[in-house]
Amino acid sequence: MATKALAVIAGVGPGTGASIARRFAKAYSVVVLSRNPANFEPLVQEINSSGGQALGISADVTDPTSVKSAFEKIAQQYAGVPLAAAVFNPAGGFTRKPFLELTEEEFSQGFENQGKGAFNFAKSALPLLLQAQGLQHPPTLIFTGATASVKGSANFAAFATGKFALRALAQSLAREFGPKGVHVSHVIIDGVIDIPRTKAWTFEHEDAKLDPDAIAESYWHLHTQPRTTFGFELDLRPYVEKW
Amino acid sequence: MATKALAVIAGVGPGTGASIARRFAKAYSVVVLSRNPANFEPLVQEINSSGGQALGISADVTDPTSVKSAFEKIAQQYAGVPLAAAVFNPAGGFTRKPFLELTEEEFSQGFENQGKGAFNFAKSALPLLLQAQGLQHPPTLIFTGATASVKGSANFAAFATGKFALRALAQSLAREFGPKGVHVSHVIIDGVIDIPRTKAWTFEHEDAKLDPDAIAESYWHLHTQPRTTFGFELDLRPYVEKW
Amino acid sequence: MATKALAVIAGVGPGTGASIARRFAKAYSVVVLSRNPANFEPLVQEINSSGGQALGISADVTDPTSVKSAFEKIAQQYAGVPLAAAVFNPAGGFTRKPFLELTEEEFSQGFENQGKGAFNFAKSALPLLLQAQGLQHPPTLIFTGATASVKGSANFAAFATGKFALRALAQSLAREFGPKGVHVSHVIIDGVIDIPRTKAWTFEHEDAKLDPDAIAESYWHLHTQPRTTFGFELDLRPYVEKW
Amino acid sequence: MATKALAVIAGVGPGTGASIARRFAKAYSVVVLSRNPANFEPLVQEINSSGGQALGISADVTDPTSVKSAFEKIAQQYAGVPLAAAVFNPAGGFTRKPFLELTEEEFSQGFENQGKGAFNFAKSALPLLLQAQGLQHPPTLIFTGATASVKGSANFAAFATGKFALRALAQSLAREFGPKGVHVSHVIIDGVIDIPRTKAWTFEHEDAKLDPDAIAESYWHLHTQPRTTFGFELDLRPYVEKW
Repeated sequence: MATKALAVIAGVGPGTGASIARRFAKAYSVVVLSRNPANFEPLVQEINSSGGQALGISADVTDPTSVKSAFEKIAQQYAGVPLAAAVFNPAGGFTRKPFLELTEEEFSQGFENQGKGAFNFAKSALPLLLQAQGLQHPPTLIFTGATASVKGSANFAAFATGKFALRALAQSLAREFGPKGVHVSHVIIDGVIDIPRTKAWTFEHEDAKLDPDAIAESYWHLHTQPRTTFGFELDLRPYVEKW
Repeated sequence: MATKALAVIAGVGPGTGASIARRFAKAYSVVVLSRNPANFEPLVQEINSSGGQALGISADVTDPTSVKSAFEKIAQQYAGVPLAAAVFNPAGGFTRKPFLELTEEEFSQGFENQGKGAFNFAKSALPLLLQAQGLQHPPTLIFTGATASVKGSANFAAFATGKFALRALAQSLAREFGPKGVHVSHVIIDGVIDIPRTKAWTFEHEDAKLDPDAIAESYWHLHTQPRTTFGFELDLRPYVEKW
Repeated sequence: MATKALAVIAGVGPGTGASIARRFAKAYSVVVLSRNPANFEPLVQEINSSGGQALGISADVTDPTSVKSAFEKIAQQYAGVPLAAAVFNPAGGFTRKPFLELTEEEFSQGFENQGKGAFNFAKSALPLLLQAQGLQHPPTLIFTGATASVKGSANFAAFATGKFALRALAQSLAREFGPKGVHVSHVIIDGVIDIPRTKAWTFEHEDAKLDPDAIAESYWHLHTQPRTTFGFELDLRPYVEKW
Repeated sequence: MATKALAVIAGVGPGTGASIARRFAKAYSVVVLSRNPANFEPLVQEINSSGGQALGISADVTDPTSVKSAFEKIAQQYAGVPLAAAVFNPAGGFTRKPFLELTEEEFSQGFENQGKGAFNFAKSALPLLLQAQGLQHPPTLIFTGATASVKGSANFAAFATGKFALRALAQSLAREFGPKGVHVSHVIIDGVIDIPRTKAWTFEHEDAKLDPDAIAESYWHLHTQPRTTFGFELDLRPYVEKW
């Protein structure tokens, strides 16, 4: 049914993931994945009712069977449609706690969500991206990083191990799949994002929170780069952020 | 005379600088600086004859008087016109030599061109950028880095010291002027750029050289980011580059 | 029975771990942990027969119960003896494979061994290290890193995610426990170590493999630093290594 | 006259440089360089009167003629004596100021002292170090870095450009001269050093300042590493330092 190429975005709540989906929906049919359908239903409706094409699939990135099943649904629904872009953006695995109070379960969630989640997603997305050569833009796989991707702060052992692992995976995939024509990028989001959950957080300066739509524009820009000029890593932060 | 805002690009030969000038000329009057007028004359003519506005000024970034004089000419020619963007892109200071054969003069040229050159340029550009608030995009200062910005290779002491110094300056200015609304970025260009000088260099794979027009698109993208979402550093390389 | 303080080394085969155990055995009673008793039995005998004190305990760092049980044995055997140093050095989790051929099991082993293994070990060691203030040297926790701790190479997704995660953990613990007087360090071993397994590997230059005894001297040096002057990260490589 | 090998330390005041000189004087005849003889005279007397051998030479590292002249004096005084170690530790080039108030002179002093100073010193020391093979420890060249070696903070443009440049030089020399048997290292000193000038600075916690003698022990440790196991970079900070 779809004639446009596909973009799949994993990790879609009311924030960055939704903005990325809206941005990529201007050019592609988008499929959004989230554990809880309530996270994507309003977004899917919004995109479909405003001229775009969106499909939501309930999936748990930490569960390989769930991710495979989601990509099987995509294959059925969009048979023969190339995958132009895949974005890994789930927020899970965050626990802020003194190390000696951190349970094994809490610690592991950082890697389960950010490391193994990205593994599961990339395993299903990369074979499709490899086949998607010849579109307007090189097929693209983007991972969302955080401050904790490059700094292991006190009390952040769970999240930082997950985000460091995700960055290692992104580097490894960029070096393996770049020469095969797939553009792999890692975006470090360094600051608080302006989403419903953070609405009440106030700062000394105005505009002190990252705009998810502006983040989405950077993801789109990375996607449009030709293979001569692939960007790997970009760090984004508000103008008043300390770093 | 001009009603459009200004962009100043230092370091304009037939490669990246020219592509950046062409890209920014779609929105701004551009001023291009180069030691040798032969480097910018065809470009200025090309932009002016195709609907844009360009002015070339002969200037040596390593000479503070020369840079000041160039910005005085800009002030006269474009009195009252805001400076929307400034790009520091000179190529000088490159010498590849065993350390013990490197003269003091050759060694110093790395810092003179990349460090002090950027200092001179930023000293003149920043006061204008600080005044240029309220335009469509935050005023922007972008520095061009290289592989040698993050890796000091054998025989690259001259260039790497210059490029590391330039990166230090870019970080320092981003942290000081970001909170004042000026967007400072540093782009690491990791690979051979496809310019006339490198036309004869062939590689095993096609598209193995960076496209200067694609580099320019990334500079433009950085310029368009809102102050909530400033990108500081982006690394660009061909898909087949080893890194 | 012991009057000397303790050092516990996890990951003891015939290479670096054994050298570390020998070095720390000059000052401390050492406990060495390894999955397979065959890995530590000759070493324990060697240390005990040459004037030192050593105890081997079979333990699997990826299994929290096994690690807890090992530390319970230590507590019984060395009741009231302070823990001066703990070293995490297991080699597990290494698989070199194209990403699409990597099984979930293989991928997870990187984190299981390097990330969760270090978590399990640190959980048991840190409470003891916190109590060990007042000895000649600040109590010390050292983690062994690798090239893959800072670079995610093609085909190294499993090991690099594990080693990046381990580095994140080390940073997080250094920042949390440093102010509490525990010295946390991370040593990046960049190159092939000269151990029985690599004896047959030859290189163009002599001395091209890291000497495990020299590595052990650096671990000991880090341990002897006063709290005014804690080293966090040290990278070690042979003089002819490319980096 | 001397039968012991030589160590030359540039940048000797009452702090780190003096501690390094004292430490290396336990094994070597030491030559200390400083612009102002008052900086080294008490130290030279102290070492000579306590069984060591020390010589002070007034030299300005930013002046190539001055550095060459100092090494000529060394060659005359210690004809035929091998140079076992050279340490570059001058403190100059530090200015903390808003960028727009920074003069060209102030800005350049960062590079003059840290970049060109290190160039001048390395130019004279490396030929001697290359000849000093066969001693107990590989000939060693160590550069002193700072927080500003890896972070360009606001208002630190002068010092950070100098320290980044110094780190680039250290990397480049390590990669060129390591394979030739010379051990090149870079030590990042991240925090306030406990020297006469900082005696009055008090902190919330005791032991919050780096101990120069402990820093010197780490320099000595690096010097003793065999060529199989060269450490390049080590970061040192007080246990309570924020980083």
